[in-house]
Amino acid sequence: MALIDEIKFDSAGLVPAVTVDEKGEVLMLAYMNRESFEKTLATGKTTFYSRSRQKLWTKGEESGNVLEVIDIYLDCDGDTLVVKVKSGVPACHKGYASCFFRKRVAGAWQIFKEKVFDPEKAYKK
Amino acid sequence: MALIDEIKFDSAGLVPAVTVDEKGEVLMLAYMNRESFEKTLATGKTTFYSRSRQKLWTKGEESGNVLEVIDIYLDCDGDTLVVKVKSGVPACHKGYASCFFRKRVAGAWQIFKEKVFDPEKAYKK
Repeated sequence: MALIDEIKFDSAGLVPAVTVDEKGEVLMLAYMNRESFEKTLATGKTTFYSRSRQKLWTKGEESGNVLEVIDIYLDCDGDTLVVKVKSGVPACHKGYASCFFRKRVAGAWQIFKEKVFDPEKAYKK
Repeated sequence: MALIDEIKFDSAGLVPAVTVDEKGEVLMLAYMNRESFEKTLATGKTTFYSRSRQKLWTKGEESGNVLEVIDIYLDCDGDTLVVKVKSGVPACHKGYASCFFRKRVAGAWQIFKEKVFDPEKAYKK
């Protein structure tokens, strides 16, 4: 059976994909449809389906911060993917290594990471 | 502003929550609604909303494998949570430490983890 045939895409044709790096840091969560999953396999670069823009989106296509796939994991229910990528490439469009740069501290979300690049320079206006 | 007010729940009132352990292993992905998020904060144990059973579900309520919360993170868009829990408690109802016990190997999903408990004994029929 092909890899994709064991993935349970939801009613919108999507599956959440958690991207982690080699060190075990969670970088981001995005969604894949069948086409973006196949493109990720074919290219070795994470490609998602943007729900807001309603189109395929290869991570880093604009910023250059492409995430190279090392391993892909499927969960017990077949409805979530984990994609392990090479470390060292920032994943967040706000300039942080990880999108999860806010942490619960004393009842508030507090930024606990430093920016690693300037998003003003990385993205076109 | 309260923690919950910065979370963007989707049209079904849910947000995906990725559970990781202290070692950085991704254990599972489940969904929280407002009530389960508040209950998680209040109890320090991960509580989700089961979409299939349409009710709150404290992880481990049946198996005893309760996941104790260490930290909670919110992503840049406010629509995904990461919950870090104490290591050593198996998360998968199929008997594995992590729900992500299948990995892509040569074009197939291959089980690469050992079971750590017997699900037949942990769950009532």
